[in-house]
Amino acid sequence: MSGLAGRAAIAGIGQTEFSKRSGRSELQLAAECTLAALRDAGLGPRDVDGFVSFSLDAVDEIELARTLGCGDLTFFAVVPHGGGAACGVVQQAAMAVATGVADVVVCWRALNGRSGQRYSQGVAGQIVTTDLVHWGWYMPHGLFTPASWTAIVARRYLHETGATSEDLGRIAVTLRRHAARNPNAFFHGRPLTLEEHQASRFIAEPLRLYDCCQETDGGVAVVVTSLERARDLAQPPAVIRAAAVGAGPDQEVMTSFYRDDLAELPEVRKVAAQLWAQAGIAPSDVSCAVLYDAFTPNLLMQLEAYGFCGRGEGKDLVREGWLELDGRLPVNPHGGQIGEAYIHGMNGVAEGVRQIRGGSVNQVRRVEHVLVTAGTGVPTSGLVLGPA
Amino acid sequence: MSGLAGRAAIAGIGQTEFSKRSGRSELQLAAECTLAALRDAGLGPRDVDGFVSFSLDAVDEIELARTLGCGDLTFFAVVPHGGGAACGVVQQAAMAVATGVADVVVCWRALNGRSGQRYSQGVAGQIVTTDLVHWGWYMPHGLFTPASWTAIVARRYLHETGATSEDLGRIAVTLRRHAARNPNAFFHGRPLTLEEHQASRFIAEPLRLYDCCQETDGGVAVVVTSLERARDLAQPPAVIRAAAVGAGPDQEVMTSFYRDDLAELPEVRKVAAQLWAQAGIAPSDVSCAVLYDAFTPNLLMQLEAYGFCGRGEGKDLVREGWLELDGRLPVNPHGGQIGEAYIHGMNGVAEGVRQIRGGSVNQVRRVEHVLVTAGTGVPTSGLVLGPA
Repeated sequence: MSGLAGRAAIAGIGQTEFSKRSGRSELQLAAECTLAALRDAGLGPRDVDGFVSFSLDAVDEIELARTLGCGDLTFFAVVPHGGGAACGVVQQAAMAVATGVADVVVCWRALNGRSGQRYSQGVAGQIVTTDLVHWGWYMPHGLFTPASWTAIVARRYLHETGATSEDLGRIAVTLRRHAARNPNAFFHGRPLTLEEHQASRFIAEPLRLYDCCQETDGGVAVVVTSLERARDLAQPPAVIRAAAVGAGPDQEVMTSFYRDDLAELPEVRKVAAQLWAQAGIAPSDVSCAVLYDAFTPNLLMQLEAYGFCGRGEGKDLVREGWLELDGRLPVNPHGGQIGEAYIHGMNGVAEGVRQIRGGSVNQVRRVEHVLVTAGTGVPTSGLVLGPA
Repeated sequence: MSGLAGRAAIAGIGQTEFSKRSGRSELQLAAECTLAALRDAGLGPRDVDGFVSFSLDAVDEIELARTLGCGDLTFFAVVPHGGGAACGVVQQAAMAVATGVADVVVCWRALNGRSGQRYSQGVAGQIVTTDLVHWGWYMPHGLFTPASWTAIVARRYLHETGATSEDLGRIAVTLRRHAARNPNAFFHGRPLTLEEHQASRFIAEPLRLYDCCQETDGGVAVVVTSLERARDLAQPPAVIRAAAVGAGPDQEVMTSFYRDDLAELPEVRKVAAQLWAQAGIAPSDVSCAVLYDAFTPNLLMQLEAYGFCGRGEGKDLVREGWLELDGRLPVNPHGGQIGEAYIHGMNGVAEGVRQIRGGSVNQVRRVEHVLVTAGTGVPTSGLVLGPA
């Protein structure tokens, strides 16, 4: 029983180029991708009455509104926990639309993730979060970076499931193959071989260089409005059939090491249960999945937590080719954050919309339900999108 | 047309003591006030599935959930813009409940506002916000603190309306009179005279010491659930008849100095219009108002922007005694942030609930609609509460 399912739709998507040095401010990136998303929808800045972004975003929505010449706002909020917010911002917009709080809500994420604040540095560089309580326990042991935190979980996961570094490599190869065909991807035209993956250096064992996503400068925005209004706009609506966030037991940000079971993502299972219930579908109904891939093991663990297979069977799906464009569950046709760009998951939301519209450069055939997910290892979120 | 009005209710309120030195962490303060609010409602930590706070709050909801032993969460968000969030967090909770996203949502604010990070220092002390774009224009002129920013607006307002420092003093005297009878107020038993107000030093002309609210250590939490569920809990529900947020043209945080009209609060008018429409009432229907009083002029300007009187007439209401407990519009029976405590407006939400229940130490007679407001000079928010 949800008051969210099917009430709102994504009516516009927009993005900047994805680069390693944007040469401009996050505010400008946010303005550019927002304008692009509004143009895509056939709307203008004066139509916007709500904004949502990540708590980590450097730009305040009122600065963005002034920059673009928007009018009054009746909705604003931010969603915490880094990449876990990628679908949570869309949930916020859907809630605002469903309750009549706002008519047209822009969700955006803009960052200079390579040339500016590099999230890969974790607490080794600038402190990027206020969530410091528990890190005092890990930093003395040299756990300073997202790769080091993920490695703790990944090592246990590989040990328990028998998945290997080659399995992780197969994921990277698939995503890079998708990205190679995507002109907007950083790795356009540059596929990866399994041998190259296996020869790449360890960043934090068992994570090799090519198991880690990129660092990117850029911005992505989406425009959310009621399904009714979206039907009259410039693009076919991507209906928000389900939107959910979740946090699990002993939840920390990237370091939920006190759990009995390290190799599990209970917060993802919490999101999954809500999504399937809201949308009224089962995992087998998903036509295409955009899975958050900050690191390759995250993707394996999500296949299991979202119920596409049993515990430890993610590697089998990979080996059987499920993730390929013509596979049973095409994953990240845009190339993901490993292949296209790291916009904290917002570029995945945009790809989900393209798959619904049918215009992706790597279009999956017969798309009915697209699953989009957000950061793993953190309180997280997810979406099910579908055509009107 | 709103999907929010009357759907949710505040079922519990809780707070710590209000002091100048709590002697404990913000996490502990947050846990204490949350537990108190849950007990007040007849609920426990395991009933909570959502948390909302201010973006400025030092505590992450997942740390609070672990500390209290809550289960999984299906809702979390933070509201930006300092004290402007006070009612916005309740709007968030109401949205979550109305859309079925969560059943029981805790909204809290906990701070060591005197012994820890002192907001009164603005950008003269620790930088308390990421909103730095525009401050580069003001800091070179010595505008470092909230009092200095508010003084710019207050000076213009007094000039245009003919309100005087004595009028501001009358507000302070009224609020301190209310606080003097409130055992939870910092200024319990310590009323203020107009002469003392007039003799107090300028903090930033025209703001005298007693025009400025306190700095406080403490925490306040409220529990929001569906009206249906609230009816079965321990306390009479305070129905959320309206909840809104708003940002206006050329909106900045405390420094919207580029507006044609400095002595106006368009974001408050935006909130007011939504509240009256959602609740289906007019300003004259309000039985009691809890108005955000970081500085006395804010209160005058809100009387006008919420439509209780015309432009420049706020001073007349004050002189005619409207704000007294037996006046036509009793304001801040708890003593406000000037008299009780500065918990960034959350203590005002709790007082609004007490007035609806009928148990305030300074209870207003025949309460039907209570207006509660949030920070002025920033993107802001408001509530209309009523009995079930």
